[in-house]
Amino acid sequence: MFGRIDHIGLAVADLESAIELHTQAYGMPLVHRETIAEQGVEAVLLDVGESHVELLRPLADDTPVGKFLATRGPGLHHVAYGVADVDAALEAARGAGLRLIDETPRAGIRGTRVAFLHPKTAGGVLTELVEAH
Amino acid sequence: MFGRIDHIGLAVADLESAIELHTQAYGMPLVHRETIAEQGVEAVLLDVGESHVELLRPLADDTPVGKFLATRGPGLHHVAYGVADVDAALEAARGAGLRLIDETPRAGIRGTRVAFLHPKTAGGVLTELVEAH
Ligand SMILES: [Co+2]
Ligand SMILES: [Co+2]
Repeated sequence: MFGRIDHIGLAVADLESAIELHTQAYGMPLVHRETIAEQGVEAVLLDVGESHVELLRPLADDTPVGKFLATRGPGLHHVAYGVADVDAALEAARGAGLRLIDETPRAGIRGTRVAFLHPKTAGGVLTELVEAH
Repeated sequence: MFGRIDHIGLAVADLESAIELHTQAYGMPLVHRETIAEQGVEAVLLDVGESHVELLRPLADDTPVGKFLATRGPGLHHVAYGVADVDAALEAARGAGLRLIDETPRAGIRGTRVAFLHPKTAGGVLTELVEAH
């Protein structure tokens, strides 16, 4: 069902430092930058193999990523798996008894369709399903 | 420098449930199982694209993963990037001013050579470098 790791999402307090770390020290090309107002983040994608690192800077303290930063500090926030068909994957997850955050897919970064599974039944991991276009 | 995401490492309290989630609901084949006494974990690898999910069950409460579980609960523990030459990658990380956990590479899971970067200078992310054989 899950074809690859599409990306890992990192919560960052200082976006420019995080970009410098990933581009300079880690050698990952920065390939996309987008402000996603409805999710309350400025997001940056870097390429690594068939996957990406997604840097997430909260636009305000009272956003999900802002609250995560306040309690846990910067670091690993979620993992996203690539799927061929996000509607089918979400239906399969529902059928497997997994708790969903998104009942139906919604727009994700860079024109993708995404849906999140709740950490509660996903091993404590905030898990995103991504259908790339 | 970093060629791909080699794996994400997940701290798990109940290894059999985590295996069931990843194999049954997520459709990832289980490809390796190993007890690494010196790291205090029982580890399982599952395939996903060019990457793996690494499940880590602590062998005791006073191990690093045991302590992580006690404070944070199950979930994302570390990310590992694949490198062609772990000695060279570690030297480059040192040269970039990054704080190292391992001054020299050591044996990792399934015959790999690995080294960990300290979260402090890695964006709050426990970061592993992996040279596959
Ligand atoms: Co994401
Ligand atoms: Co690992």
